[in-house]
Amino acid sequence: MKHVTVNFFQEDDIEASILIEGLPGVGHVGKLVADHLIDALGGELIAEIYSLHFPPQVIVDEEGVAHLVGNELYRCEKDGKAILFLVGDFQSTSAEGHYILTESYLDIAEDLGVQRIYALGGYGVGHLVENPRIFSAVNMEHLRSEVEAAGGSFENAGMGGMIVGASGLLLGLGEVRGIEGICLMGETSGYIVDPRSADSLLTVLSNLLGIEVDHTFLQERAEDMEQAIAKIQEAEEAKIQEELNYIG
Amino acid sequence: MKHVTVNFFQEDDIEASILIEGLPGVGHVGKLVADHLIDALGGELIAEIYSLHFPPQVIVDEEGVAHLVGNELYRCEKDGKAILFLVGDFQSTSAEGHYILTESYLDIAEDLGVQRIYALGGYGVGHLVENPRIFSAVNMEHLRSEVEAAGGSFENAGMGGMIVGASGLLLGLGEVRGIEGICLMGETSGYIVDPRSADSLLTVLSNLLGIEVDHTFLQERAEDMEQAIAKIQEAEEAKIQEELNYIG
Amino acid sequence: MKHVTVNFFQEDDIEASILIEGLPGVGHVGKLVADHLIDALGGELIAEIYSLHFPPQVIVDEEGVAHLVGNELYRCEKDGKAILFLVGDFQSTSAEGHYILTESYLDIAEDLGVQRIYALGGYGVGHLVENPRIFSAVNMEHLRSEVEAAGGSFENAGMGGMIVGASGLLLGLGEVRGIEGICLMGETSGYIVDPRSADSLLTVLSNLLGIEVDHTFLQERAEDMEQAIAKIQEAEEAKIQEELNYIG
Amino acid sequence: MKHVTVNFFQEDDIEASILIEGLPGVGHVGKLVADHLIDALGGELIAEIYSLHFPPQVIVDEEGVAHLVGNELYRCEKDGKAILFLVGDFQSTSAEGHYILTESYLDIAEDLGVQRIYALGGYGVGHLVENPRIFSAVNMEHLRSEVEAAGGSFENAGMGGMIVGASGLLLGLGEVRGIEGICLMGETSGYIVDPRSADSLLTVLSNLLGIEVDHTFLQERAEDMEQAIAKIQEAEEAKIQEELNYIG
Repeated sequence: MKHVTVNFFQEDDIEASILIEGLPGVGHVGKLVADHLIDALGGELIAEIYSLHFPPQVIVDEEGVAHLVGNELYRCEKDGKAILFLVGDFQSTSAEGHYILTESYLDIAEDLGVQRIYALGGYGVGHLVENPRIFSAVNMEHLRSEVEAAGGSFENAGMGGMIVGASGLLLGLGEVRGIEGICLMGETSGYIVDPRSADSLLTVLSNLLGIEVDHTFLQERAEDMEQAIAKIQEAEEAKIQEELNYIG
Repeated sequence: MKHVTVNFFQEDDIEASILIEGLPGVGHVGKLVADHLIDALGGELIAEIYSLHFPPQVIVDEEGVAHLVGNELYRCEKDGKAILFLVGDFQSTSAEGHYILTESYLDIAEDLGVQRIYALGGYGVGHLVENPRIFSAVNMEHLRSEVEAAGGSFENAGMGGMIVGASGLLLGLGEVRGIEGICLMGETSGYIVDPRSADSLLTVLSNLLGIEVDHTFLQERAEDMEQAIAKIQEAEEAKIQEELNYIG
Repeated sequence: MKHVTVNFFQEDDIEASILIEGLPGVGHVGKLVADHLIDALGGELIAEIYSLHFPPQVIVDEEGVAHLVGNELYRCEKDGKAILFLVGDFQSTSAEGHYILTESYLDIAEDLGVQRIYALGGYGVGHLVENPRIFSAVNMEHLRSEVEAAGGSFENAGMGGMIVGASGLLLGLGEVRGIEGICLMGETSGYIVDPRSADSLLTVLSNLLGIEVDHTFLQERAEDMEQAIAKIQEAEEAKIQEELNYIG
Repeated sequence: MKHVTVNFFQEDDIEASILIEGLPGVGHVGKLVADHLIDALGGELIAEIYSLHFPPQVIVDEEGVAHLVGNELYRCEKDGKAILFLVGDFQSTSAEGHYILTESYLDIAEDLGVQRIYALGGYGVGHLVENPRIFSAVNMEHLRSEVEAAGGSFENAGMGGMIVGASGLLLGLGEVRGIEGICLMGETSGYIVDPRSADSLLTVLSNLLGIEVDHTFLQERAEDMEQAIAKIQEAEEAKIQEELNYIG
């Protein structure tokens, strides 16, 4: 078996200059943004990626049909601009596999003419964040001003931070191939799936892409989440008050 | 050393259109059914499969003879229908090994003309089950009606379930090769080897295969198990009663 | 780097029909016997075996010289009989590595004309044993009577026992190549290095080899060990008596 | 992807007869010495080494630029003597990777004409050390007198010590290629980054290299560390005194 297998569903007219990666990670921030964009821009599934570096399992869907775990490549066009999306439910099960898979992603990217990669993720800070910043990293210094102009922050720089997995390696191994790489990481607690952080990330990403996208879906999910958290907090405060009354 | 070594004991007239996998898993349900069927249908050992992805050890048998751990391929004929069985005591020790071994199983299946694979297993629910359902998954949507007609349930669909190891990958990687795959999972506690669940699974499988098989062996083992459990429960209740008397 | 590297110090007249494996294992029983035999029979180092499947480290000797960890092949002649010894301080760090290393050991064995392998080890029983039995396994049924005649026991057969690592695989993979394999396992607590068990194993092995070997070294070490254990037991009993006196 | 990728920034006139390895390890002693020497001798970066055996991540620098983790090769000349330095922030993530990476380091060393390797590290002893000794190991016995003359100690010999990772394997695998190897290990607690131990190691290394190097940087860091430790100790003693006063 090959380490990585890529099945293309179509071969013609699938070039694109931009690739957006939204694989699972902290707070599922990158995945939320990428999945929402594919939906909002009407993305088309163009390839499936399987590998022995993914977990050895299938997912059973709502019809009872089993699907090999893997990643998927979507493509969409907006305002004459073509964008590829790399999404899925898993990353590599081993350290070596992360390198091998990312080289495959970059092979595809090069073949399809990609010149810039946006790697999306979360940046765990250990507490709830009301107005999440979008921390950033680039793989070529000249990209920094563009990210800042779009609302990305570099306050994380100089903290000795690491970016682990596909997001990090797309920048690191991409630079070797001369592909521009920008990593956007939405500030998030790290404890919950975080649509509020995803919503903030989408704003910065939209600015960078120069396209407008509807935020309603992410905002509604963010509000649902915040109401749920507020209810839990109220219940806890009520309980504390009750205990105080009892003591008093 | 090759990743996987297959030693055939005979080469002629070993084609079969059906492969049944019963490797170890939850409640050993699949293994119980497959081992029983091989016994009931008079299966013949046609190949041994060794691999560096199995545990590095030998099993010492009742005569003191050591045998390399591996999987075995049996073949039997019933009513003019030829069936292959993939059984054994171990699965892969690593994630990558599951993929490599399953590709080997599928190579053998293709060589021998297999068109459909039944992957048998257990579905752990965490509590004792009196009338175990047989949860199901298929790798092609058109197979679903046939499974339902035979008594298989798809109530597990839509729960985001995963099927891990050889059972799952035989469906997932089999679909890529155009081989039909049906996974039958007997509901079971997950705590004990479960012949009752195996007995229920055998009913559904017999319907799908269109062959009649004697259930006596599995039913007797199921009754033995249920009597043992009943005795333990009685003893526990007696103890509780005694304690109540003592308190009272 | 190759998976396994074998450096021969001499190439001529190194054939031998017997290989004795004494790598580290339970109670270091096999290692004690093999190291003692090499010493007693005046074995000559004929090859070193290195591999990336051994731990990534060197051992610093008494002169401050660092040596790559690996296994060693010794050869000795006694009464016109040539015997190879496979010894060392480590086994593989991974499951796959056990297979790869054992295939290399068997390649060497075949090249040098080996027709029978004795794999030596311990059999942990969890308590001190006064008269350790030598449990056995063979890779061809016809070898059993010979082992029993030499004093080996097969009381372990039928317990579903496994033999893990090089000892087990030399039998399992050796059988595939038509090389006879006998595993001798000295009963031992499993808690301490056990020269008493090694002494018993040496008796059975000497019978099988048809050579006489001086046991003094192992017997002295066994007596030292037993005296040390006796002292610890006396001290414990004295302490218990003292506590009883105190209470009384 | 290749296991190891070496990118040279220049190809001409980069030969050197000496390689100094200062990768991360106990107390970061080797790394402190190597980094300081590169700085003091004006080393020039001549190559970067990437590998799928390093952790799958990038490091974000102070400018927000992401860099693939890897090791680096520096070169400097002093008094007509050319020295290579192997430094970086990581070692292999797996046992096998240590072997594969070290073979690559030795390939480079051979290509560039290296005849001797100094592997620098720490030797953890579990308590603070005022006057750290420099324990040593060599891969050829004739090197020992030279190390002792330079102030290296062999008191560690005969303790059954192991040297793990790149430092150990550079000696072990280097010896196979006929490259002299000397490992210098600064005695250190093992709990903290230890510039005092590094300072002592630098003295012995300077003697061996026959070059003089300014120690100020390491000495200042050592004094800072010792003052910090002294303050902590004073604070603890004051606290104990206070508690005694309270009791008294």
